[in-house]
Amino acid sequence: MSKKKSTKTLAEKPTILVTNDDGVTAPGIAALVEVAKQFGRVVVVAPDAPQSGMGHAITIGRPLRLHPVHLFGEVEAYQCSGTPVDCVKLAVDKVLHKKPDFCFSGINHGSNCSINIIYSGTMSAAMEASIENIPAVGFSFLDYSFEADFSLSQQVAAEVMHALIKGQLPKHGLYNVNIPNISLKKYKGVKVCRQAKAKWKESFVERTDPHGKKYFWLTGEFQNQDKGKDTDVWALSNHYASVVPVQYDLTDYDLFKSIKF
Amino acid sequence: MSKKKSTKTLAEKPTILVTNDDGVTAPGIAALVEVAKQFGRVVVVAPDAPQSGMGHAITIGRPLRLHPVHLFGEVEAYQCSGTPVDCVKLAVDKVLHKKPDFCFSGINHGSNCSINIIYSGTMSAAMEASIENIPAVGFSFLDYSFEADFSLSQQVAAEVMHALIKGQLPKHGLYNVNIPNISLKKYKGVKVCRQAKAKWKESFVERTDPHGKKYFWLTGEFQNQDKGKDTDVWALSNHYASVVPVQYDLTDYDLFKSIKF
Repeated sequence: MSKKKSTKTLAEKPTILVTNDDGVTAPGIAALVEVAKQFGRVVVVAPDAPQSGMGHAITIGRPLRLHPVHLFGEVEAYQCSGTPVDCVKLAVDKVLHKKPDFCFSGINHGSNCSINIIYSGTMSAAMEASIENIPAVGFSFLDYSFEADFSLSQQVAAEVMHALIKGQLPKHGLYNVNIPNISLKKYKGVKVCRQAKAKWKESFVERTDPHGKKYFWLTGEFQNQDKGKDTDVWALSNHYASVVPVQYDLTDYDLFKSIKF
Repeated sequence: MSKKKSTKTLAEKPTILVTNDDGVTAPGIAALVEVAKQFGRVVVVAPDAPQSGMGHAITIGRPLRLHPVHLFGEVEAYQCSGTPVDCVKLAVDKVLHKKPDFCFSGINHGSNCSINIIYSGTMSAAMEASIENIPAVGFSFLDYSFEADFSLSQQVAAEVMHALIKGQLPKHGLYNVNIPNISLKKYKGVKVCRQAKAKWKESFVERTDPHGKKYFWLTGEFQNQDKGKDTDVWALSNHYASVVPVQYDLTDYDLFKSIKF
């Protein structure tokens, strides 16, 4: 009887894949592992080096390495030489040998709201899981610092994980969660949003190397072009954590229906 | 009088940015430059090495290099050390010092139909241009070979460029064009499509290096999950070139409207 109960409990404990794009040693992923542990058996497969801005890149032209690391106490963890998307693919095929019940990515050091989603390795890892029908969430905190205080982010992550596991957030969904950089006292709660229309205005900084050759650093300024109060940018500016449900059918259906060719 | 006319003709000639993800030396970009030259002044800024599968990656952690190359006769051309998206950003900010009138990316060696779009550097370069409100098209040919015959692809590219310049394809759009690997005789024409629902089934090949350490090669099988006859996969299988109008608001509006939180 007790054996049966024990088996059932084990079976009920979900397997949770945790990954990120800042690399396996980033404080953000440690913060996420701490929260995820409360909801199931956590396995970490994350990049061995920072992979910010990698978008949905995959590694085709060279092979991938995968090494166990001991960074999260009892939690099974691996570092991978590839991109965040590679990490998810390798985790399913070569670490777990099955699909996990959930995939959580982050907590990213910096915003992935609005148009940032398409450059984001954090969200691309979550999207790759979603393509595999794994319920998936990317978490990002609007503080780039490695000394950031993740306590509000952890509270939001726990709230979102709970909602997903209980079905309040549908399990077939993919979610882009951003957490504002404010005090707990000012925080107003979670808000379901749409992606704000925005872009980056680039401005490359030009320098000259010691050999007299020019090189360029990518810099830019985020420009919100969307005045809607239902957007992630609005929510974050107004002390909410934003949750954008995400899909990856990129068809422009208005044009699809209207073009005569 | 003749001076005035000459100025007007110059002003009317559109500036066309050409890029790709297979690298500046790939035969596909040379084939695209040949076609684009018929429609305006072409400037090439393309990666200095293959960047397939780079998705919407950008280069944040290291600077970028940009060098002139002489590969396309009289056409001004540069190779860039960054990703396809970097190439578009650098081209606008540091080469053209303005937005081009059109951006054409490709011709990619291999398919970017269906879910491939999110992994594709070719389409991400075109998307980056579209974010900047530049009319943009990515072209991909369903033949991975560097010895591929691009004559049908060039015919399709000319047809699409003409339609875009004439406004038959709206200029505010972004288009994912794929060309089937068939004989000209079998080719049925261009078809406007939606993105087919599909995924890749991964299967990593495991090997051991001379030092006894394991490594993994990403391989996989494309799985179409969509039986619709209005998809790009259907069109390509039925001897059409597919044109999918593309957008990058990733909000899942069905979920956005239905979630109560």
